[in-house]
Amino acid sequence: MASLDAIFSPKSVAVIGASTRRGSLGREILHNIIEYEFHGTLFPVNPKADFIHSIKCYPSVLDIPDAVELAIVVVPADAVPHVLRECGEKGVKGIVVISAGFKETGEDGAKREQELVRIVRDYGMRLIGPNCMGVFGTHPKVRLNATFAPMMPIDGDVAFMSQSGAMGVAILHAIGRMNVGFSFFASVGNKADVSGNDLLTYWEGDERTRVIALYLESFGNPRRFTRLAKRISRHKPIIAVKSGRTPAGARAATSHTGALAGGELAVDALLSQVGVLRAESIEDMLDLVVAFSRCPLPRGNRVAVLTNAGGPAIMATDALLAAEMSMAKLSQETKEDLKSFLPDEASVINPIDMIASARAEDYRRALEVLLDDPGVDLAIVVSVPPHMLVPDDVAEAITQVSRRHAKPVLGTFMAKEEFYETFPKRHPDCPPLYRFPESAARAAASLYRYRRWQQRPVGEVRTFEVDRDAALELTQSQLDKGGGPMSQENAFALLRAYGVPVAAVSRVADVEEAVAAAERIGYPVVLKASDARIEHKSDVGGVALDLRSDSDVRSALHVMRDGIHKTRGLEVEAFVVQRQAAPGREVILGMAQDPLFGPLLMFGSGGRYVEVFKDIAFRVLPLTDVDAHEMIESIKGYTLLTGFRGEPPVDLVTAEEMILRVAQLVSDFDCIREMDINPFLLTPQRADCMAVDVRIRLGDPGSAAQDLAP
Amino acid sequence: MASLDAIFSPKSVAVIGASTRRGSLGREILHNIIEYEFHGTLFPVNPKADFIHSIKCYPSVLDIPDAVELAIVVVPADAVPHVLRECGEKGVKGIVVISAGFKETGEDGAKREQELVRIVRDYGMRLIGPNCMGVFGTHPKVRLNATFAPMMPIDGDVAFMSQSGAMGVAILHAIGRMNVGFSFFASVGNKADVSGNDLLTYWEGDERTRVIALYLESFGNPRRFTRLAKRISRHKPIIAVKSGRTPAGARAATSHTGALAGGELAVDALLSQVGVLRAESIEDMLDLVVAFSRCPLPRGNRVAVLTNAGGPAIMATDALLAAEMSMAKLSQETKEDLKSFLPDEASVINPIDMIASARAEDYRRALEVLLDDPGVDLAIVVSVPPHMLVPDDVAEAITQVSRRHAKPVLGTFMAKEEFYETFPKRHPDCPPLYRFPESAARAAASLYRYRRWQQRPVGEVRTFEVDRDAALELTQSQLDKGGGPMSQENAFALLRAYGVPVAAVSRVADVEEAVAAAERIGYPVVLKASDARIEHKSDVGGVALDLRSDSDVRSALHVMRDGIHKTRGLEVEAFVVQRQAAPGREVILGMAQDPLFGPLLMFGSGGRYVEVFKDIAFRVLPLTDVDAHEMIESIKGYTLLTGFRGEPPVDLVTAEEMILRVAQLVSDFDCIREMDINPFLLTPQRADCMAVDVRIRLGDPGSAAQDLAP
Repeated sequence: MASLDAIFSPKSVAVIGASTRRGSLGREILHNIIEYEFHGTLFPVNPKADFIHSIKCYPSVLDIPDAVELAIVVVPADAVPHVLRECGEKGVKGIVVISAGFKETGEDGAKREQELVRIVRDYGMRLIGPNCMGVFGTHPKVRLNATFAPMMPIDGDVAFMSQSGAMGVAILHAIGRMNVGFSFFASVGNKADVSGNDLLTYWEGDERTRVIALYLESFGNPRRFTRLAKRISRHKPIIAVKSGRTPAGARAATSHTGALAGGELAVDALLSQVGVLRAESIEDMLDLVVAFSRCPLPRGNRVAVLTNAGGPAIMATDALLAAEMSMAKLSQETKEDLKSFLPDEASVINPIDMIASARAEDYRRALEVLLDDPGVDLAIVVSVPPHMLVPDDVAEAITQVSRRHAKPVLGTFMAKEEFYETFPKRHPDCPPLYRFPESAARAAASLYRYRRWQQRPVGEVRTFEVDRDAALELTQSQLDKGGGPMSQENAFALLRAYGVPVAAVSRVADVEEAVAAAERIGYPVVLKASDARIEHKSDVGGVALDLRSDSDVRSALHVMRDGIHKTRGLEVEAFVVQRQAAPGREVILGMAQDPLFGPLLMFGSGGRYVEVFKDIAFRVLPLTDVDAHEMIESIKGYTLLTGFRGEPPVDLVTAEEMILRVAQLVSDFDCIREMDINPFLLTPQRADCMAVDVRIRLGDPGSAAQDLAP
Repeated sequence: MASLDAIFSPKSVAVIGASTRRGSLGREILHNIIEYEFHGTLFPVNPKADFIHSIKCYPSVLDIPDAVELAIVVVPADAVPHVLRECGEKGVKGIVVISAGFKETGEDGAKREQELVRIVRDYGMRLIGPNCMGVFGTHPKVRLNATFAPMMPIDGDVAFMSQSGAMGVAILHAIGRMNVGFSFFASVGNKADVSGNDLLTYWEGDERTRVIALYLESFGNPRRFTRLAKRISRHKPIIAVKSGRTPAGARAATSHTGALAGGELAVDALLSQVGVLRAESIEDMLDLVVAFSRCPLPRGNRVAVLTNAGGPAIMATDALLAAEMSMAKLSQETKEDLKSFLPDEASVINPIDMIASARAEDYRRALEVLLDDPGVDLAIVVSVPPHMLVPDDVAEAITQVSRRHAKPVLGTFMAKEEFYETFPKRHPDCPPLYRFPESAARAAASLYRYRRWQQRPVGEVRTFEVDRDAALELTQSQLDKGGGPMSQENAFALLRAYGVPVAAVSRVADVEEAVAAAERIGYPVVLKASDARIEHKSDVGGVALDLRSDSDVRSALHVMRDGIHKTRGLEVEAFVVQRQAAPGREVILGMAQDPLFGPLLMFGSGGRYVEVFKDIAFRVLPLTDVDAHEMIESIKGYTLLTGFRGEPPVDLVTAEEMILRVAQLVSDFDCIREMDINPFLLTPQRADCMAVDVRIRLGDPGSAAQDLAP
């Protein structure tokens, strides 16, 4: 694939469809390129004009005497293929198609879009769009603003990709208002050729880009995104807003896992697993972008809050604690330093309330002292105007102090609206300035969360020795029968082939066989109905626990057989006798296929009520040992696993290994469409840990994906 | 108590401590009163000046020849008592003490503050403050701006009370910027006399006030607040931000309920139970205030989203669905009406995307059609600038349409910052204008939530016939022993006295008695250790379930006795034999005393792991039947109670009654400090429902409150 240099740092640009009519896209783009002073040569192309915006105009790109690296195409949709072919002939390397009228309009448009892709592939060109708002790059040696947005970019370190042109411009505008600068912007439109993933790769290598921001409405290739984002987020923060819901109700899932695996859960799992900071709203995204652009990362989560009023400091403290930050404990020395110049009524216990009389000089001295305290990792400075709304002197003081320190400082100023725009213009290296204490607190928490992500071990995707042939045989024989749910015996065998221990089981046909099996296994035992037509055995009285004698087994079997016959009209095919498991914790280990994201692994508190209490964690593949570990730690029931009220802890190493083995199994066999190991019993000893019950459904990956698609 | 009329609609005002020095509080307040054109007579008081701000000045309030209704006091703290006495002599009725230097500064200040209270009570005056920012009232016949905030109030229907002066001014300023007007503002400072509750009562009766907004840092008298807010919120929305945390970790709770009942949970329970809309942040509060001030209430939750761009409409839809709103299904007629004038590429399935070419006229026609559809309860209009940031024509169009309809319309405009300030100034009846779709969606959801609150039945506090004498005897005998945990037998007896059914229990001393009791009760039985020194029996192996024979009982008792001896060094006092309960659902019914809010009742999923899964609901007293019903419905485990996967539902009427009976018990006996009924067994038949285990701790209300205080 050719690089994106031709698009983002061309030496010459043709605007094909340039226009003289004010307000038309072809005129606005040309105007923006000139106005922003593109560092290269610009060629308007329009057969009906001799010059546009004072520049000589050519009838077609082929008529331009010089080389053309990038073409911005603004002609009507049906003329675009012809124009692209001419570009190919001319040797143009990069294309941005602004024109709409492609995939977004239906089938005819989709065909036309495919034609564009063929043409650019034929000529080795790269294309952004169609149906987009354009791109810009601010490097002083390029200075290309090929958008029709009514604003000029500010040079900076944020690269921003938007899947919606309109939202893109609105976000650009809002970020620009805070005087945060961009390195690149791309509105990717229909993503016919250049995808979000291509941009991520390109921006990864760009030295100026320190922060990547994404407005996403869908994922083209989530598995490639996973790999890329995981790598890039190690050294550059990626902040994303993802809109759009998947109607989870549309699925016909028969497993616990399938019923719980909605589209948004998959998106959440994916983003957090690869270190992407998911913003909850556009506003949240703006707050994070300005923080990451203006602040270093904190070493820890200990925050000092410096204020001239109690109220907003309490709000900040509330929001910090809710986001798992902590309030720094100030050293004795720090407290004494503060006391030496603050009035008696001031509080030198964090939050540090200098009371309403505080002046800019007090802010300067106090912030200096706080940042010097090794127990403080970052500071939030709150300034509320006691009489007058002129906080510039306080903002200047904290800007000066923060310059000298490697710790983040975030400001909360209650000021007139102009302040937030004008102050950063005059002081481009000022701390991020928020209107409300909660915004500063949430942004501070994200800085710390990202710092932790960077320090988190990468982990590895472990591969265990397994009996893949046996698994292949088991799955193939089920697929030969047309797929569907495996028998419990075969499902257990499949787990065993991948090293997942399972309960000892005897399949029996009648009472006498059941009693014989129970005596062989040893009491107490469990009796279960075994019939592929029954989805959740315990719902139909198909499970009897803790049977302690022959007569217990006899009566349980009779009750079960008659009950199921009566309620479901089924003659139960067979029964299963298992040894009653050792005391332990029931967890669920499951998998459901997402049409887009592939296998979603689930771990959580197990039992019959998984869907009710939803104490679960999801992850996508590939799954590392660190991911598995975090899954276990993230559920509420983790407290029980580590030993609740003096009970012995379960074997967590085995728990982690089991998740990884299941990951290996479902990644080797994509014919596994759904799986519930529920309960998987975790006990203190590895030897007692086992899958007690399992449901596995096989199917054709292709058709199943369609079945599950919303 | 005298009314607050003297404070909020005086005919004459004295500013005591008026000053000529610019920037001083005494000058700024005087200036604000003049500038806002107080509709009455103003008297500056200052012994050192003849006139201030061109107005004749008096040495003391006693020298003023005319009557004075309200005095604003800005003299130093130690001079305030004297000044107040003079006011009393003069016949002043209302006082606002701006001066600081009272309770907030320590013990001396607190004493001085008590003196102020004595003086105002002696003379029958009412006092706001001290240590506050002042008050204003905008009624055209009053027009009093007695604050030193650097802004002039806009006349309107929002009454706003702030516990923090600085935050109050910041919030006033932010709300004013949106051109939302106020009826009253009060910064209450230390609340020495006039409390937030007094203001609520006063504003309840004020015709112009339609919306009440509160910035709270603490509750003075939460029980009175409960009664008031419950009544007022029926006809006027109350929007509150509450900051400040209670360090829940500071409590030494021995019950599940006590361990879970943190201060913030109590605040949440209280506010939602009395219909107060708790804003999550200051920003959220602003969003709600503007919505309630400008919108009628919706009849239902069916929203139409009208947009010219897909991205923000998806964001709005996400936020709406997350807030339990629904997307309106448009009628066939509506769709055809829309199609008749929108381009082919437009989507007439909600969200209605008119695409980028939409003009103001399209917004006007489309919104008209949507609001005429009986399936639409409210509309969110999104406008993103395609080329130019000038949305005024679209905003004008929707303002015109919304005038003619009784359904709420909320706007989301991505525009230049000036737009949000200038448009509402020119169109005071415009819809609320938000910057981001999520804000509009959350505000819409709050309008609907409040509408539902208004329609919710009031409910009643039911009183059951109980054996109060028996309960008194049981509690008194325990208190005579110094309080502490009751024996299980007595705790069961206390529940029985209040009509809460309990498991049949035999207390036994040894193996032989246990076997005899088991045979009398009938197998299967449960054996439990009974010893007040053991807090959680199951944690020490003190519970053995499902014992089916004499030998089961014998061996269980031996194991239990030896185990507890070994691990805890205790000779178990006695044992309890109970009938094994019928199959049912285990819930917990609990109570913990909050030092401020009184008894907090808890209902939730029961069992040993209450603290782990935290599937619980809290409510404060007084508790109505509707409250009890909502508690039950609000937990996740509610699904299990209503019959999960074909199982019979439990008796929910009994569940509700049990909550109410426990409420009656703890409200009758405030010596009950903590209670866990866990599990309480709910079954399909009332006769089988019962408390299986209970822990009740008694103590002296006074001293216990201090123990628990943070």
